[in-house]
Amino acid sequence: MAAELTAQELIAKHRPTLDQALEAIRTRAYWSPHPEHPKAYGENGSLDAAAGKAAFDALLGTRLDLGQPGTDDWVGGEVSPYGVELGVSYPHADLDVLLPAMKAGQRAWRDAGAETRAVVCLEILKRISDRTHEFAHAVMHTSGQAFMMALQAGGPHAQDRGLEAVAYAYAEQVRTPGTAEWTKPQGKRDPLALTKRFTPVPRGIGLVIGCNTFPTWNGYPGLFASLATGNAVLVKPHPRAVLPLALTVQVCRDVLAEAGFDPNLVALAAERPGEGIAKTLATRPEIRIIDYTGSTAFGDWLEANARQAQVYTEKAGVNTVLVESTDSYKGMLSNLAFSLSLYSGQMCTTPQNLLIPRDGIRTDEGHKTFDEVTADLARAVDGLLGDDARANALLGAIVNPDVKARLEAAAGLGEVALASREIGNPEFPDAVVRTPVIVKLDGARKYWEGADADVAYLSECFGPVSFAVAVDSAADALDLLRRTVREKGAMTVGAYTSDTEVEQAVEEVCLEESAQLSLNLTGGVYVNQTAAFSDFHGSGGNPAANAALCDGAFVANRFRVVEVRREA
Amino acid sequence: MAAELTAQELIAKHRPTLDQALEAIRTRAYWSPHPEHPKAYGENGSLDAAAGKAAFDALLGTRLDLGQPGTDDWVGGEVSPYGVELGVSYPHADLDVLLPAMKAGQRAWRDAGAETRAVVCLEILKRISDRTHEFAHAVMHTSGQAFMMALQAGGPHAQDRGLEAVAYAYAEQVRTPGTAEWTKPQGKRDPLALTKRFTPVPRGIGLVIGCNTFPTWNGYPGLFASLATGNAVLVKPHPRAVLPLALTVQVCRDVLAEAGFDPNLVALAAERPGEGIAKTLATRPEIRIIDYTGSTAFGDWLEANARQAQVYTEKAGVNTVLVESTDSYKGMLSNLAFSLSLYSGQMCTTPQNLLIPRDGIRTDEGHKTFDEVTADLARAVDGLLGDDARANALLGAIVNPDVKARLEAAAGLGEVALASREIGNPEFPDAVVRTPVIVKLDGARKYWEGADADVAYLSECFGPVSFAVAVDSAADALDLLRRTVREKGAMTVGAYTSDTEVEQAVEEVCLEESAQLSLNLTGGVYVNQTAAFSDFHGSGGNPAANAALCDGAFVANRFRVVEVRREA
Repeated sequence: MAAELTAQELIAKHRPTLDQALEAIRTRAYWSPHPEHPKAYGENGSLDAAAGKAAFDALLGTRLDLGQPGTDDWVGGEVSPYGVELGVSYPHADLDVLLPAMKAGQRAWRDAGAETRAVVCLEILKRISDRTHEFAHAVMHTSGQAFMMALQAGGPHAQDRGLEAVAYAYAEQVRTPGTAEWTKPQGKRDPLALTKRFTPVPRGIGLVIGCNTFPTWNGYPGLFASLATGNAVLVKPHPRAVLPLALTVQVCRDVLAEAGFDPNLVALAAERPGEGIAKTLATRPEIRIIDYTGSTAFGDWLEANARQAQVYTEKAGVNTVLVESTDSYKGMLSNLAFSLSLYSGQMCTTPQNLLIPRDGIRTDEGHKTFDEVTADLARAVDGLLGDDARANALLGAIVNPDVKARLEAAAGLGEVALASREIGNPEFPDAVVRTPVIVKLDGARKYWEGADADVAYLSECFGPVSFAVAVDSAADALDLLRRTVREKGAMTVGAYTSDTEVEQAVEEVCLEESAQLSLNLTGGVYVNQTAAFSDFHGSGGNPAANAALCDGAFVANRFRVVEVRREA
Repeated sequence: MAAELTAQELIAKHRPTLDQALEAIRTRAYWSPHPEHPKAYGENGSLDAAAGKAAFDALLGTRLDLGQPGTDDWVGGEVSPYGVELGVSYPHADLDVLLPAMKAGQRAWRDAGAETRAVVCLEILKRISDRTHEFAHAVMHTSGQAFMMALQAGGPHAQDRGLEAVAYAYAEQVRTPGTAEWTKPQGKRDPLALTKRFTPVPRGIGLVIGCNTFPTWNGYPGLFASLATGNAVLVKPHPRAVLPLALTVQVCRDVLAEAGFDPNLVALAAERPGEGIAKTLATRPEIRIIDYTGSTAFGDWLEANARQAQVYTEKAGVNTVLVESTDSYKGMLSNLAFSLSLYSGQMCTTPQNLLIPRDGIRTDEGHKTFDEVTADLARAVDGLLGDDARANALLGAIVNPDVKARLEAAAGLGEVALASREIGNPEFPDAVVRTPVIVKLDGARKYWEGADADVAYLSECFGPVSFAVAVDSAADALDLLRRTVREKGAMTVGAYTSDTEVEQAVEEVCLEESAQLSLNLTGGVYVNQTAAFSDFHGSGGNPAANAALCDGAFVANRFRVVEVRREA
């Protein structure tokens, strides 16, 4: 194929961005090339709000033909959590045709080298960035995120995580030089001399198994890490959240073809309702890498059964916030209220268990009893969500009936400190919008200490459900935190304390159990949010996830280095 | 504990060496701080030949008390392949006492940081280096390697691989800075500002399962990679090769204690005859990393069952040399003869299958028929091993009765091109010393193409056994090579060809199947030898091993990075 985009052009265009990303992952200071503000789009070829909406609307009811080989059917059926039927159909693949076709272009992709692969990935991300408004609607109407969150988390933040993976992948591949001259002295004899060539080679085909709530944010790291390390990538979206990843695949295929590579290096595997192709795909011998976000049960199944592949999983966890004391009571309450409310708590990073001493806490506003803290937190959430328009903008919609069922059941688990309310959405009357519930539970040691402890706060209750757990002491809270992280995993841990000893103790628990800790957040940064290039998402060291986004371990085993040596 | 060796002293002493190692893994040019020549030892505190021999002799018949907690018995029983009973006994551990004790010092070891851990490891390696002559005897009398090989491969080359692992581990840990200031602009509002601290944390206890043939060379990478990344390390030696690793553990414990750390961070798990503690150890919850060298069956068992751990395995493979043509016939024959003979072929890197076209090959000495090539190779081996003293120095002893049995059975597999001879060893009359056997087999496609092909050259026959396999064409040889690597794995591939197309084709097979290739070696570098800091040992991408020595992937998942963030 004649390339419309040459490697030189792409390097000239994107190398400066790659270099900035490489510097950012080294310093971990703030950086992003992808604007968060919706009004930043509309120039230099990017779609503004109206154009993005129009582009999304034009997709509805259409067949998204990706031009993939081996398409044997057209499947679809997404219904937005806001009530809209998307009506988009996608190619269904005959794997025995598609998978071999995906391997055909791998040699040229491998031979292109790490830098060319990186800048092709950056061109893909740039085109996705230009369509951020369009993707925002696709993410909103599959995940149920409110529009602004869908735009930011599904757009620039997801693109950042993709770029971060490209940067790590590039850095890892160039740690070994392309060639080396090796000359070993032999005393008075001639030295031994070899010429060595080192080539990063892909493992095969990477499989990305997408999730319902963050199709792009959780999908891009694996997609770009595998692609940038020379692998072909098959994207298996969640059946309720196909569109954002199908559009992504389309952009990948376009850019690959324009750059002279085989577009089949990236393909979509959409499925019929109830078909459940993930197990079939995950154990195909061609699949050598799997990136998965979803339930612990299926993540564990993948780790146990997809033995021919490197498996990277993000599963369930139980996130804890220890509330021991604070010198900014109002700041703490408003910060926590936001974290509990955002996207109706449907984030893997949302706090679930708030461990609060039964005897109350010291604050800058005096001593507060357990009941006062929970009541004040309830009031803070109510205040945050008191206005329906603001509530809709923060909460988004409940993503599926399972979350709604869990929310409704939670009120029966204990004394309700904050009841969930239904919020009307004038624009989308069918959207299910709910405020969070906070339930008080007893965290006395006797309830959770035994091996057979069966308390609600030792299981993940995904959705807008939090437990205010009354503990007997800070020491008990630390022990419960440790047990929770060790046995159930955690994507995030938060703590509020003005006591140096407690602070050190909670840090030590997090270091020992490999959990990421946010301390005393009272301003505009929240425990449930991480920033690419700086914050790690998960640690890979506790049961919630076996990998972190993004570090060397996330990329280093997606390729191998093959050495060819000969006498010089 | 008051440290006799401060971190500052160790940094001053070893940082220059660490920096050179970091540079070497970046350039992959020749480098080693560990002398190969036996006469290089004897000054600056190192043991010369006589002192090393005396130190080894003094160990025989003694109890090697490592001062480990939980010692409930003393076990031993090693008999040298040269016939000497070592008579050394080692502590047998009560795991329920030893494993908790090993965890006690982990916090201080973690808090010491990557640089201090690296220089402590370098001090350990330096002390081992000083005792290279003593270790050489220990390796010789457990592995059966001849003395000079035991000294070089078991001494400096093993120390190089350990240092290489330390360098990779250090580099990986410092990729993320210790702290970062993160400031995100917020338009006209105050920026968001966080202070972040990043700490590399260990996974837990690493388990090193040693092998019989290269206890130090194959044991050091995992041991030092795990220790340098903050983990405690339990060393489970092969029951026939305990002493070299027991001495290593002793040095580790001494240095750790002198540097103010808990010596129990490194411990030995010796076992009673037939006790088979590896399975028990490998599935203990405290064990979070496993490094294993040995049979495919047990390696596969570990990968399937030790699910709580990161498992790094080097298993069996079938190494191939393609002999298609050469412009240095004599060089090729002498190079191959050496590779087949060294340590009686008891290396995971020794070539097994020599694929030679049935119609013969082009050489600088004219056309050579298949029978001429095999006969000339047999003569080259005979010439190399014609002198008994030289033969003993190259071959060493047969490591165990299984190898001897395989060698004897091999002669019945086909026409013998070179019969194995028994060589007497005047110094050690009980040593079993054998020259290699070369057996001719038919490599016609019909014999190996089917899924149920049952030919000797599709299985590993570990020991001094090679097969001269008559193939119908170079194309057939490439297909057989591909099948062999893909299904059986390979630590090494060699090829002799003066045809550019064949050369490119064999390179492509190796790139696609992830095998390390040596091309046209006719001088003093051999396909079965790799040099630390430059050559990768294995690729981690074919069934012979799931990891390469040493790359980023070998170290990156032995620790995790925990972030603690707070408002600035």
